[in-house]
Amino acid sequence: MRFVVIMAGGAGTRLWPLSRQGRPKQLLEIVDGKSLLRLAYERVSSLVPDDRILVCTGRVHADDVAAQLPELAAGNILGEPEGRDSLNAVAWSAAEVARRDPDAVVAMVTADQVITPVDEFARSLDVAFTVAEAHDDALVTLGVVPTSPHTGYGYLHKADELPGFPGVHAVAEFKEKPSAEVAERYVASGEYWWNAGMFVWRAETLLGQLDELLPRTADTVRQIVAEPERLDELFPTLQKISVDYAVMEPVSQGATGARVVSVPLAIDWRDVGGYLSLADLLSTDENGNRVDGRTVTLGSSGCIVVNTAGPAHLVATLGLRDTLVVATGTATLVAGLGETERVKELVELVRTRVGAEFA
Amino acid sequence: MRFVVIMAGGAGTRLWPLSRQGRPKQLLEIVDGKSLLRLAYERVSSLVPDDRILVCTGRVHADDVAAQLPELAAGNILGEPEGRDSLNAVAWSAAEVARRDPDAVVAMVTADQVITPVDEFARSLDVAFTVAEAHDDALVTLGVVPTSPHTGYGYLHKADELPGFPGVHAVAEFKEKPSAEVAERYVASGEYWWNAGMFVWRAETLLGQLDELLPRTADTVRQIVAEPERLDELFPTLQKISVDYAVMEPVSQGATGARVVSVPLAIDWRDVGGYLSLADLLSTDENGNRVDGRTVTLGSSGCIVVNTAGPAHLVATLGLRDTLVVATGTATLVAGLGETERVKELVELVRTRVGAEFA
Repeated sequence: MRFVVIMAGGAGTRLWPLSRQGRPKQLLEIVDGKSLLRLAYERVSSLVPDDRILVCTGRVHADDVAAQLPELAAGNILGEPEGRDSLNAVAWSAAEVARRDPDAVVAMVTADQVITPVDEFARSLDVAFTVAEAHDDALVTLGVVPTSPHTGYGYLHKADELPGFPGVHAVAEFKEKPSAEVAERYVASGEYWWNAGMFVWRAETLLGQLDELLPRTADTVRQIVAEPERLDELFPTLQKISVDYAVMEPVSQGATGARVVSVPLAIDWRDVGGYLSLADLLSTDENGNRVDGRTVTLGSSGCIVVNTAGPAHLVATLGLRDTLVVATGTATLVAGLGETERVKELVELVRTRVGAEFA
Repeated sequence: MRFVVIMAGGAGTRLWPLSRQGRPKQLLEIVDGKSLLRLAYERVSSLVPDDRILVCTGRVHADDVAAQLPELAAGNILGEPEGRDSLNAVAWSAAEVARRDPDAVVAMVTADQVITPVDEFARSLDVAFTVAEAHDDALVTLGVVPTSPHTGYGYLHKADELPGFPGVHAVAEFKEKPSAEVAERYVASGEYWWNAGMFVWRAETLLGQLDELLPRTADTVRQIVAEPERLDELFPTLQKISVDYAVMEPVSQGATGARVVSVPLAIDWRDVGGYLSLADLLSTDENGNRVDGRTVTLGSSGCIVVNTAGPAHLVATLGLRDTLVVATGTATLVAGLGETERVKELVELVRTRVGAEFA
């Protein structure tokens, strides 16, 4: 049977103070009142029934996830005791799905982006399921057809087309985030896709690859799903490593005899990694500012003003240019728009100067 | 006996959102944790005992005044049912003081400024009391010896010195806020003082002047103190007018046969009318920003950052230049420092666009 696991970990420091340790960006209700998590659920809910949709998230966020996805049973929310990087979220989820159905084919999807059109995404995911069902030896990735030489994504280098699946290609190589020059070359060649960080495979295929590449991880996640009461003891012993580095790259290099193939996503792919990309999702006021929540702007332009402090709080700007203003119940950030890349640095300063409870 | 009335009305729109309809600037604890009201009380408490110090304020602020001045009995806080401009605060207070002591000499002092040194202020106020006690026909004003050609104050034009009181002068004329050129001329001439808006007189002298100039007002305030239960009925019937326009200007022009004299204040006189003057009272952080409350600044300079939203709220700035940030529990203002003169306009916009409860 087909399963979907939505990966919703991560702290999202770049959107501080909207996102906090207690509230990662996937849970922020920033797109017409919906969170990225909710959008991710709605993207896949036409493909599989709710009892086969799982979410893997930090345990501290499990209640918030449950509140945003009331359709899911509590047992379908996998709460990691702590973050151990992407491989272990993927591996634990795969083991849990394999426990429920040893023949399961599972899509591991992210909740970091706004994707349109949703139909096109669902169509590609359906193709990826079909490829994984037809090929026990395939790790299927989703590759976004690039619309620009973006330097913020990894790239997949396409090789031969998969027989019987027009447009689906073997992946020859995973490339880290490139320089601007290299990204230009990649996109001009037509041979590269953005690495979406989404995967489809038989759960047992992924676990079999781990048996070869990281056997201790494979054993541990199988133990966790067999004895879930040992989660807190075992999960923190897992080696911290990304799924690309642990599995996708070595397999694409032929390390195990399995193969990596990629299904293209011809979609609009908006990463909501920082405030400049978030602004694209906000409405525009009469002065050309991007605003959200209870705000008033006077003589201000080119600003991003986000107020999530509730209806009893007003954010007003006066004679302001190209400035970011973010107000939450516990913190206010005001930043020059050209400086938002330094938010992580600011959060570190907040942590050391004021206290971790504000970071 | 000597009395002091501290005039603490007014909304202080220019310091929005620190000051609100519910919390005028005199009540803001902005000077080393003390409010301007508290400082005004401390300036006069060496001159008269607490039972002869009164505060005239808006009734909605009476509880806050009482909390900041626990030394005063409840009956010494005169709460106006509504603002009717400065004359009526002065007239009602004078009538109340005259009821307590028909021979009383009363100083009417403001709570809008930070004044140093306090000793010098007390010394001048003592002189003003002495002049008023010696001259039943004198309305004594306090004139600040100008330190700059300020265009934000009214000016007093000095005439002859009062015999027996060196440095104390008759006032020939009250001048409205001048242009920059005129202010330069005033200060260069040595003939002008800033109008402090503070007065000392026999209570009955002031009431007698009102009998001539605005007899209905004189009657009404006498009725109010005779039948205090009629305050809400009578106070709103008083004509709205300023004390300068109603009394000081006509008397200085000889309208009644009484006279206006002025005692000089050789003090540092800091009006806290707006944010730029408020900033002078704040501490300076390591980046040269003026800050107050829980704040962190990174890569920011020339900013004023005021956080009164409490210790559970942090205000952080990043890469910001010459910007005002004010956070309170119910509103956040972010303004270019060159635009703070438009705060009143912004508050009007807030009132109409968002609602009076935020103004």
